[in-house]
Amino acid sequence: MKSLCILGSTGSIGQNTLRIVEQFPELFCVKALVAKSNITRLAEQIQRFRPEMAAVFDSNSAQKLSQLLPAGLKIDILSGPDGLKAAATLGSVTLVVGAMVGAAGLIPVLDAITAGKDIALANKETRVVAGELIKKLARQKKRSIYPVDSEHSAIFQCLAGESNNPIEKIYLTASGGPFRGMNLNQLLKVTKTEALNHPNWCMGDKVTIDSASMMNKGLEAIEARWLFDLSPDQIDVIVHPQSIIHSIVQFEDGSMKAQMGIPDMRLPIQYALGFPKRLKSNFPRFNFLDYPKLTFEKPDKQVFKNLSIAYEAMHKGGNMPCIMNAANEITVDAFLCDRLSFSEMPEIIEKVMRRVAFISDPDINDYSHSDSEARKVAMSLL
Amino acid sequence: MKSLCILGSTGSIGQNTLRIVEQFPELFCVKALVAKSNITRLAEQIQRFRPEMAAVFDSNSAQKLSQLLPAGLKIDILSGPDGLKAAATLGSVTLVVGAMVGAAGLIPVLDAITAGKDIALANKETRVVAGELIKKLARQKKRSIYPVDSEHSAIFQCLAGESNNPIEKIYLTASGGPFRGMNLNQLLKVTKTEALNHPNWCMGDKVTIDSASMMNKGLEAIEARWLFDLSPDQIDVIVHPQSIIHSIVQFEDGSMKAQMGIPDMRLPIQYALGFPKRLKSNFPRFNFLDYPKLTFEKPDKQVFKNLSIAYEAMHKGGNMPCIMNAANEITVDAFLCDRLSFSEMPEIIEKVMRRVAFISDPDINDYSHSDSEARKVAMSLL
Repeated sequence: MKSLCILGSTGSIGQNTLRIVEQFPELFCVKALVAKSNITRLAEQIQRFRPEMAAVFDSNSAQKLSQLLPAGLKIDILSGPDGLKAAATLGSVTLVVGAMVGAAGLIPVLDAITAGKDIALANKETRVVAGELIKKLARQKKRSIYPVDSEHSAIFQCLAGESNNPIEKIYLTASGGPFRGMNLNQLLKVTKTEALNHPNWCMGDKVTIDSASMMNKGLEAIEARWLFDLSPDQIDVIVHPQSIIHSIVQFEDGSMKAQMGIPDMRLPIQYALGFPKRLKSNFPRFNFLDYPKLTFEKPDKQVFKNLSIAYEAMHKGGNMPCIMNAANEITVDAFLCDRLSFSEMPEIIEKVMRRVAFISDPDINDYSHSDSEARKVAMSLL
Repeated sequence: MKSLCILGSTGSIGQNTLRIVEQFPELFCVKALVAKSNITRLAEQIQRFRPEMAAVFDSNSAQKLSQLLPAGLKIDILSGPDGLKAAATLGSVTLVVGAMVGAAGLIPVLDAITAGKDIALANKETRVVAGELIKKLARQKKRSIYPVDSEHSAIFQCLAGESNNPIEKIYLTASGGPFRGMNLNQLLKVTKTEALNHPNWCMGDKVTIDSASMMNKGLEAIEARWLFDLSPDQIDVIVHPQSIIHSIVQFEDGSMKAQMGIPDMRLPIQYALGFPKRLKSNFPRFNFLDYPKLTFEKPDKQVFKNLSIAYEAMHKGGNMPCIMNAANEITVDAFLCDRLSFSEMPEIIEKVMRRVAFISDPDINDYSHSDSEARKVAMSLL
């Protein structure tokens, strides 16, 4: 029985996690739930799953939550950073699902690892910004980090049983997004509506824009670097518009293993929760005859500059991925608010990367400082 | 250090095995070599690898071999069934490579398992004819059977680390051979030269013809049944003309794992020898940009009747795969000697399967008897 704390239980990953808990009550139980804004949903989840503890971001939310719960329900309701920490480090918890959006997710994940918990980690920012820090801490504490996203889960699945076989190379597959095949001129004219229309995956706005700009794949390359202990040269991106092969590992004998299937976020979540056991599912099965052609092409880094920018940040290391990530968040926000065009985003990011001070071996405070500095500079450039 | 006995050391698999031994002298040594006809090559191999024992099929060959070896070389030279058994069960041997062609390969493999050896098994006939027997014996003796061929090695590689995760289904990929896309009328006119011209793999004549008729894939389905403990309904065949994805496993969560790469027989041999360690190789690496399209189609069982025949034999079980395999060997021989047309082969095989007595739970003697009976009936039908 795995006892969960879900950081971000009311979001998409959190809700899917709870659906899996519901389906396998003999394998999972919920000990702590953490949410930011959707207090109504959190109250429902508490009544359904009866955790020992719930934590929210501020005392107002905590008060609101108390009022929504039936009198006499036995639960500790906490708030603020201390509340998040208490939930992430709760004694009865064995596995923490890190599904909180943004930088706020980092500290409780570090707290959880320090307290000896394994982590199912969906929070991309956490892995990009402080992947090195997390990896070092997890290694030191002998804890496991299970990736909860399609590409890294694919790599992770392909690595099962291969722990003594070094990776030669990985290929992260990219759908190429809605603007695949466009040239720089065409990209000048794309609209927000077009950018939000992803061909294969249904995701939040931020990641959908990142997918259209291919920054998403750059962020994933950086994540992969730390998750799988690779050098930047071992990480390649290949455009595969059908999104059926989710990623590929190449070993030192030249053999390659790929994980594939219909794009479905539930699968990597379930795999991370159940690992090493695969849980029987009724998710739709892949049929080769529905996809008679799987195609592959080189990503166009001249047009999709964010991908080269991310590789540059990865090569540079230190706080550079953190700076890039913060700048990217600001530009995506600005694009979504019609304050920037699609093609202007990489220009801003590059400028921010040149202006914020580089730190080669940052600690957690450096990350936090670089992040806010990069956001400030990016805002000033809008 | 793994100590090898190679049954069939002078054939293609045997020679490739010795090349791997040569490359990794710290991992492998050769204790026994067995060959049938190429005594000159065997003599060279003995001088190079210095096994304790060599066995050949008859005393004439043994005598010839002795004469070819330098006086004073310390080696036991044996011949006949007892010689084969002595080599396959030699005390210092830990891994037996079963690469002898045809039914002759079965007995020494059974002897080796009984004597507690692990087996790297290339001999298709052995696995098709008596797969059930081998599997039962290996389970009883707690020995491992490592498949040495592209498709089953692919499945085996995908199963690493998944021993507690049941297989839902496997897909064996088939190139479709030189006659892919033909209808029955077109198939009536194909020549031997055309049949021997395989698009992707360079193999012996027998397996090349089997590949053209798709009997090869039927035989592989039967092998897979025993190797991986599957029911016939769990084994599907998909035509994939590029032969890059070598086979696919689907698990109960719906996730699929595929092994892929450039078609190269050396890889599965090396994997079987080194398992669970992958050995660093300089084999050419796969590049997605060389294969921008991977395509998949349903095999046409109306046109390639041998595939339905093999599935019928697999469903029937007992000695039926043995009967089918023997009848197929005779018809392929006859086709290669211009005594049968390509389209007549399945007709003969079906007739033989109807005429030879069915045995649902055959022992080793039943297999041997059914095999010769089926050959006799097939010959009479030519």
